[in-house]
Amino acid sequence: MISKAKIKFIRSLEQKKIRMQERMFVAEGPKVVGDLLKVMHAKLIVKTAKPKIENAGDAEIIDVTEEELRKVSFLQHPQDILAVFPILEEPNVKPAIPSLSLALDGVQDPGNLGTIIRIADWFGIDHIYCSIDTADAYNPKVVQATMGSLARVNVEYTDLKALMETFPADYPIYGTLLDGKNIYKEPLTKEGLIVMGNEGNGISPEIRNKVNHKLLIPNYPEGRDTADSLNVAIATAITCNEFRRRQ
Amino acid sequence: MISKAKIKFIRSLEQKKIRMQERMFVAEGPKVVGDLLKVMHAKLIVKTAKPKIENAGDAEIIDVTEEELRKVSFLQHPQDILAVFPILEEPNVKPAIPSLSLALDGVQDPGNLGTIIRIADWFGIDHIYCSIDTADAYNPKVVQATMGSLARVNVEYTDLKALMETFPADYPIYGTLLDGKNIYKEPLTKEGLIVMGNEGNGISPEIRNKVNHKLLIPNYPEGRDTADSLNVAIATAITCNEFRRRQ
Repeated sequence: MISKAKIKFIRSLEQKKIRMQERMFVAEGPKVVGDLLKVMHAKLIVKTAKPKIENAGDAEIIDVTEEELRKVSFLQHPQDILAVFPILEEPNVKPAIPSLSLALDGVQDPGNLGTIIRIADWFGIDHIYCSIDTADAYNPKVVQATMGSLARVNVEYTDLKALMETFPADYPIYGTLLDGKNIYKEPLTKEGLIVMGNEGNGISPEIRNKVNHKLLIPNYPEGRDTADSLNVAIATAITCNEFRRRQ
Repeated sequence: MISKAKIKFIRSLEQKKIRMQERMFVAEGPKVVGDLLKVMHAKLIVKTAKPKIENAGDAEIIDVTEEELRKVSFLQHPQDILAVFPILEEPNVKPAIPSLSLALDGVQDPGNLGTIIRIADWFGIDHIYCSIDTADAYNPKVVQATMGSLARVNVEYTDLKALMETFPADYPIYGTLLDGKNIYKEPLTKEGLIVMGNEGNGISPEIRNKVNHKLLIPNYPEGRDTADSLNVAIATAITCNEFRRRQ
């Protein structure tokens, strides 16, 4: 049995403003909740009789019926468990430095952001720097699309230009751009920052100026009338794959 | 000015049953509509004063206000133009044989299917075979996610097992599977069929039996506790990239 006040509170976390105020976010489903519980304490767990939970710690656990869960869930098909986690001030994963990391410059679509976090996790990239106008990683749609990878990847919102200005002048900053060089043939370093841009406009001009290694994912066969571009999550995957393949 | 009957008809095309009955589908936005108009005739175009259209042929054109467009559009933010196209009995693109093609075995998410069609287009893969239970390529969400690539890629719904039984026994059928071999190190042929499976369950057992080249996209570093899997569109992109990179 869950109180009306709790339902209202959980549902209010769909809004970024409330998430930032309360410093809490919602995750759903045994996979996503289970992965997060391995690395952080939940405040509150709402579940049906079905899932067994490990690492619940001292979280408040509320047992509900499927119908009650439907009232709090953000999913069309609720997945038996939902939990409220804290948004930490300090990241739960420390980036290995020097290392390979990602920078997202204005990625807008929550599905793309979640998928990129999952890709970073797969390819052992611990840290993602996001421009302030990138979608919020704690948006329920992003959390779900990460499939639990949010537990293993740091997401930090920062001024990308200011960040890049703290790097040594020769620190490799990669970006995929239409005037870039064939990624299959370019030398790729073990460390560096890979910048990915907005879905419609790509990398913003001031950040593009900081990219000192311009890459291009060639289409096939070259020069064919084809898609104008790849989706940003797809381009991220192919780029990260190319870096890791060579190591 | 658009009639109530036309609004009702266009909106009814959101349902697969009606699309199959009428053999028509809806595309939206200057990019997607423009790309489709290059290769097929629209039946009907609904547009605001903004977009210029080329290749409209003898399509009926209805000029509307932004408010009227909002009534017919499937998008949250309508993009000035919407068109109704025929679903052709015969594909508008003839597959080059022998060639490299894709087979989708139960891909469910419209966004994933649309993204995969866009990837195929980028990598010059003309033909996608879909199992009957794969999402419908003419679903408005799929059409939008293709970003116009539906104009250049054939999508054929068929019994995949029966299709594979028409191939010579040594015809290369690739699939990414957990017991596959490192894709970076395996020989990849110039022609063949790349099978991708369902989001939750992967390739179905009867199709898995037909895969004679099992591949694995390694995570990095190998053996690290990481994401369990890659999203199906991401795995498709990395696999197609690997085939094309070597050619």
